[in-house]
Amino acid sequence: MAEALESKFAQSQLRTMNAALADGRFVSVRKMLLELPPSDVALILESSPTKTRDELWELIDGDFHGDVLEELSEDVRNGIITKMMPHNVVDALEEMDTDDLAETLSSLPDEVLQGILQSMDAQDRVRAEQALSYGEETAGFIMNTDTITLRPDVTVDVVLRYIRLKGDLPENTDTFYVVNRTDNLVGSVPVARLLTADPEDKVVEVMDEEAEAIPVNMPDDEVASLFERYNWLSAPVVDDKYRLVGRITIDDVVDIIREDAEHSMMSMAGLDDEEDTFAPVWQSTQRRSVWLGVNLVTALLAAMVSDLFEATLSELAVLAILNTIVPSMGGVAGNQTLTLVIRGMALGHVNPSSSRWLISKELSIGFLNGMIWAILIATVIGLWKQNATLGAIIAFAMMINMVAAALAGATLPIVMKKFKIDPALAGSVILTTITDVVGIFAFLGTATLFLV
Amino acid sequence: MAEALESKFAQSQLRTMNAALADGRFVSVRKMLLELPPSDVALILESSPTKTRDELWELIDGDFHGDVLEELSEDVRNGIITKMMPHNVVDALEEMDTDDLAETLSSLPDEVLQGILQSMDAQDRVRAEQALSYGEETAGFIMNTDTITLRPDVTVDVVLRYIRLKGDLPENTDTFYVVNRTDNLVGSVPVARLLTADPEDKVVEVMDEEAEAIPVNMPDDEVASLFERYNWLSAPVVDDKYRLVGRITIDDVVDIIREDAEHSMMSMAGLDDEEDTFAPVWQSTQRRSVWLGVNLVTALLAAMVSDLFEATLSELAVLAILNTIVPSMGGVAGNQTLTLVIRGMALGHVNPSSSRWLISKELSIGFLNGMIWAILIATVIGLWKQNATLGAIIAFAMMINMVAAALAGATLPIVMKKFKIDPALAGSVILTTITDVVGIFAFLGTATLFLV
Repeated sequence: MAEALESKFAQSQLRTMNAALADGRFVSVRKMLLELPPSDVALILESSPTKTRDELWELIDGDFHGDVLEELSEDVRNGIITKMMPHNVVDALEEMDTDDLAETLSSLPDEVLQGILQSMDAQDRVRAEQALSYGEETAGFIMNTDTITLRPDVTVDVVLRYIRLKGDLPENTDTFYVVNRTDNLVGSVPVARLLTADPEDKVVEVMDEEAEAIPVNMPDDEVASLFERYNWLSAPVVDDKYRLVGRITIDDVVDIIREDAEHSMMSMAGLDDEEDTFAPVWQSTQRRSVWLGVNLVTALLAAMVSDLFEATLSELAVLAILNTIVPSMGGVAGNQTLTLVIRGMALGHVNPSSSRWLISKELSIGFLNGMIWAILIATVIGLWKQNATLGAIIAFAMMINMVAAALAGATLPIVMKKFKIDPALAGSVILTTITDVVGIFAFLGTATLFLV
Repeated sequence: MAEALESKFAQSQLRTMNAALADGRFVSVRKMLLELPPSDVALILESSPTKTRDELWELIDGDFHGDVLEELSEDVRNGIITKMMPHNVVDALEEMDTDDLAETLSSLPDEVLQGILQSMDAQDRVRAEQALSYGEETAGFIMNTDTITLRPDVTVDVVLRYIRLKGDLPENTDTFYVVNRTDNLVGSVPVARLLTADPEDKVVEVMDEEAEAIPVNMPDDEVASLFERYNWLSAPVVDDKYRLVGRITIDDVVDIIREDAEHSMMSMAGLDDEEDTFAPVWQSTQRRSVWLGVNLVTALLAAMVSDLFEATLSELAVLAILNTIVPSMGGVAGNQTLTLVIRGMALGHVNPSSSRWLISKELSIGFLNGMIWAILIATVIGLWKQNATLGAIIAFAMMINMVAAALAGATLPIVMKKFKIDPALAGSVILTTITDVVGIFAFLGTATLFLV
């Protein structure tokens, strides 16, 4: 009898394997790896530091290299392939589906890719070049070409006999596509339909005519949102002449959904989405330093704004102490708005007709938030520093900055998208610069007018 | 012939509809809504401010209310149901699958739920109570109960005749499950297998015996990661006696993957995942104020640390000007580490055996980053303020804070997970507090020792 699955991937397995590896019991590690499905082996590799990863890779049977590579993330996969002999890579690629082949090859550094293409025989090279012929992040790039097509005028009985003769169907086949003599898509037949259809019926009589096809150059995130919206399991892909060129299945789309959703979170922290958790120290340091450099510039900018008020600051040290509160609150409020608008745009909820409404909504929230926190901070500072004027000044600055934060958070992503800049990547740093500068100006400027 | 899909949901459709609504041409809006699939109607509702949403809802044919409700997000759905008459809700719920029914009912406020349950007839109420009997965010909660089961000892021919008699199969049926007399799961038969099997064969001869079943109480994020890892389209769900109780299909899992990935991004900005982009102003203000309140406390805490050095600050205004640079850089570096570790934990890459390695890696990065930015900031400040000692002091503080940021970013999520606190929600605010306090102490403390 089958067994109920244990929750998550068994941590104990991983511990046993690590212990065996540390003790140099390579034979038992190799045996353990042979018994696991490729996706579990991939998970183990992803969860290991580079050194352990290389040791483990040597212990995986060469016949499974391709299956495991398919399941790895870009950074980890490239790290492994770069260290392999080109002819071993060619062997591993041979069994891959077109979509996995395209993804694997396209992400490799150019010199590695050329080395691999040169080690291929003519037939494999044609297949590889074809897989690479569609633009990255398009439907053509993620589609499979192993589609079973039917002609409209044959009977269900003939189809059934053909399928029995063929034996196994390609993985995740839930629909057959119907094409005419010039390969144009004319309809689709769900696999289950063949079970219930009369064997004497012709394909044209049992097929769905309104099969919705994906153009081969549609961006992959739009493909993903169509799958998500219409609960598809697979969809046909057509070229500009409406000829069937392949099909996309839900398992490839799931990866895109996951990556797209992660992209925003990672970008907002200034990280590359493909960043490998266990990458070597120096590689990670370099990647992250770009963002830190940008932040240093904005921090210096904020310091320069404060510098304008040096005279005021040297007179009243209390202003220096309170100088960070208003910018900090503006940054948090602005980032809330920014995140919400970025998500709304990703889900397709924010569009020209609703964006004006959205901006005015966020401004109202900024105004209300400004009121609430202005009153609160005035009370706290008034009591703490026993200075009502100081309380009024910080309250005024808070009010100004909360409205500025809301305005910046709501408009930045909309404006940036028009200029084709990714708001998740650059939005947060621009926003923080705005809230810092406005916050400091409002606080120190008002204080200079009324306190000095 | 079928048509190639336009990219994304046609913005022009939405514009036409909004124009018609604004002009009061309700009949044409109603007609347009009738022609769209429920998921497109849901998208339009999600993209509209509350007032427009209510007007549109009135124009949607009652027969489609259930189909549209299924596709809406929690906040928007609850807003609509709360305004409907209970007996209309009951009608809309009647056609829903068990999993959608469970999700819809469980998220309603208790008094609304009671009103709806009371309007139901006995049969519907039993169905609703059964759907609600499994814990939220478990396999039982997201499963469907419309599973087709086969007995092991019947022939394929009998199965085929039974299916033909039945006509249509439940949506997204890719596999039949085989159960014995006591309803225990003994195997599975992919739909496509029946096409290629000999009609005289018995089910037991063509089935896969190692059907992997999901326990009914497995958390839904674990279900999602199993689907993702093994590229499943559907999976059987069993109770603690290994009896088949339902099945989970990939379309429900896609929603969970999307929500889980979004959850981290939204939480890190202090937002509720279900926050509706177009929620009323006051509702959004209240929800966001919790996070702003927490941030005010941490900002005041940082101000109090600065307050300890009031004497130093009043002597040297330049310290006040530079006081934000070190905390800001620490915050960014720490958040990079935090985000990476949170994502690594979500993907299952970070586990007890790798976490020690990960912490030491992040500490090394923190040290290297500290060196790089310490040298840079010392040069900038040395030149700007013509003060080498000041440059050395800020460099030292930078070094300390970058290491503290790396340590906090790497250990916080691991520690918080042990205490079952969501690191995406609370991690970032605790981290920023640490980097603010350490940064200010290091900078102003060292300055007090060497400059005053």
